[in-house]
Amino acid sequence: MTQIWTEQLLKEYSTSIPFPDQALAKAAQAHSDQLTKPPGSLGRLEHVAAQLAAITGELWPDLSRRSVVIMAGDHGVCEEGISAFPQSVTPQMVQNFLNGGAAVNVLARGAKADVACVDIGVAAELEHEGLISRKVMHGSNNMAKGAAMSREQAIQAIGVGIDVVEQLYRDGNRMFATGEMGIGNTTASAAIVSVMTGLSAAQAAGRGTGISDHMLEHKVKVIEQAIVVNAPQADDPLDVLSKIGGLEIAGLVGVMIGAAKLRCPVVLDGYISTAAALIAAALVPNSKYYMIPSHQSQEQGHVHALSSLGLAPCIQLDLRVGEGTGAVLCFHFIDAALQLMQQMATFASAGVDGKTSE
Amino acid sequence: MTQIWTEQLLKEYSTSIPFPDQALAKAAQAHSDQLTKPPGSLGRLEHVAAQLAAITGELWPDLSRRSVVIMAGDHGVCEEGISAFPQSVTPQMVQNFLNGGAAVNVLARGAKADVACVDIGVAAELEHEGLISRKVMHGSNNMAKGAAMSREQAIQAIGVGIDVVEQLYRDGNRMFATGEMGIGNTTASAAIVSVMTGLSAAQAAGRGTGISDHMLEHKVKVIEQAIVVNAPQADDPLDVLSKIGGLEIAGLVGVMIGAAKLRCPVVLDGYISTAAALIAAALVPNSKYYMIPSHQSQEQGHVHALSSLGLAPCIQLDLRVGEGTGAVLCFHFIDAALQLMQQMATFASAGVDGKTSE
Repeated sequence: MTQIWTEQLLKEYSTSIPFPDQALAKAAQAHSDQLTKPPGSLGRLEHVAAQLAAITGELWPDLSRRSVVIMAGDHGVCEEGISAFPQSVTPQMVQNFLNGGAAVNVLARGAKADVACVDIGVAAELEHEGLISRKVMHGSNNMAKGAAMSREQAIQAIGVGIDVVEQLYRDGNRMFATGEMGIGNTTASAAIVSVMTGLSAAQAAGRGTGISDHMLEHKVKVIEQAIVVNAPQADDPLDVLSKIGGLEIAGLVGVMIGAAKLRCPVVLDGYISTAAALIAAALVPNSKYYMIPSHQSQEQGHVHALSSLGLAPCIQLDLRVGEGTGAVLCFHFIDAALQLMQQMATFASAGVDGKTSE
Repeated sequence: MTQIWTEQLLKEYSTSIPFPDQALAKAAQAHSDQLTKPPGSLGRLEHVAAQLAAITGELWPDLSRRSVVIMAGDHGVCEEGISAFPQSVTPQMVQNFLNGGAAVNVLARGAKADVACVDIGVAAELEHEGLISRKVMHGSNNMAKGAAMSREQAIQAIGVGIDVVEQLYRDGNRMFATGEMGIGNTTASAAIVSVMTGLSAAQAAGRGTGISDHMLEHKVKVIEQAIVVNAPQADDPLDVLSKIGGLEIAGLVGVMIGAAKLRCPVVLDGYISTAAALIAAALVPNSKYYMIPSHQSQEQGHVHALSSLGLAPCIQLDLRVGEGTGAVLCFHFIDAALQLMQQMATFASAGVDGKTSE
């Protein structure tokens, strides 16, 4: 039986999410300062090692079991003609994930991560033994004409994300990457980023899977219209999410909140994940300290959205494929950070002289 | 017996280095365009896959055997007081590399790469069964007072780099990362970058292993003095390298030229490697097409130096540890690029619809 999530339940679930343990972060940094390298010279790898200690409560957590969670959902706003690909691609790509043939599958294998694929709102019937079937709606409504979904549906979709992460945790997973599939979802993400960070629609909208100047202009107008029609309230993240969001975006909000609750790091992928992160951080401010940024996508609003969360990308590969691809690549850096902490010699053990002057 | 390299021999060796095979690059891109993703959406991973095909002459080369080559050398200019660490650290860190305890060792294990450590100019006696002993000088001369080395010594050091890469190739290696150890070598690198790209000494000099404002000011003056005293000729890369370079920098020039000759990709690490790349590309223009950039170091002149080679970093981790650390991390992305090409489903095989509109 599927749990029914309510606003009250979500609030209760989220209240006990703590600020990560700074004593552990300091202990990790103190260890790092003894290693045979100039102090601080491993840069963000040292910071992430300290963050991982603070998040998990262990100096060197075992994150060898990890999953990329792909939330798949469709967008009613596709009927406005804002994407280069037809909506049929969403269920087709879900099949591709389940068969192991998509980019994220290949990268997940390379990073020793599992792929968990969730139908949270695909506008087609899907059946596969590997699929996590938790459909909240058959695609969102067209946000250019009204709310993408009801507030209750948004909460239910967040709950699906939490449920999925809790199950994956019970299966042994201790780190998560956020992935998604949903034709049209850079349009919803741009709308969220615009409302939550104050960027104009023109600044927040990008080319998605690769649209022309002409279509980009149209996409901006559709986003502007969706915001005018729905008047989402920036100080009420559930209002924003339900009116101009998407089911897979709501699911990712749940993944982020659930990961934080379980004291697990969650690696953000690109623009859609970052839009979800803005909602998660507004709902549960402490959740953002459990997030680790990965790549800078080609979507022009992405860096701004990340930086409004106090985050900066560490991978510049001009990716714009989504699915969790950039986040999964970042697992290699997280592994590197932990391995450096555990395997490097110290100045004392290696007989290396320290700094003589500033 | 050690080969004696001459300017004539180096010239003959380099003349046959071809521009990489563009037919192979096109074939790789054509394959990439059939994979289940928006065209071009894997960004630089697609470009690097095409570059690897062009370099090696194989669509999907096997690069599973690879090494980071660490050239170690000392710098006479250390007597001017330009580093936060004493010169004794160079041989101590070489021992650390040979014992497997340095950052680069840990990262190389994570990236399934071997570490080849070369004494090309350490100012101390070193013996270890794992060390490649090819000392050209016991440290360079103080470039603030005269040439760091003779032209013949610079050529011999380049030859050492070529010899080492050729031996590693015979042992089965098909990809290389450039690493180095040498207290004082960001000073020599900044001098090279200044002369080769036109940056002022103040723009080219950074904090190295972590010096104060006061020491940085002094470092800039020392670089300016070295350039005035030696008057290196920017259109004669061997003149620049010998007068204001370093033995490990010259060794890396050889690694880059040797890799290109053998049609192997060579991944550049940070500022010191990029200074060497400027010399290599000036000596052998086609060699730069065999180079793959990795991270953006904290040294302020680094991005400018890379961009003057037409390269841009893909990793932003604020590393400034050197050793080849950033380059070795980039091996994960190179593996990812090749795995995507080989393992992803095509639109046809997966039954996914293509683009409908621009």
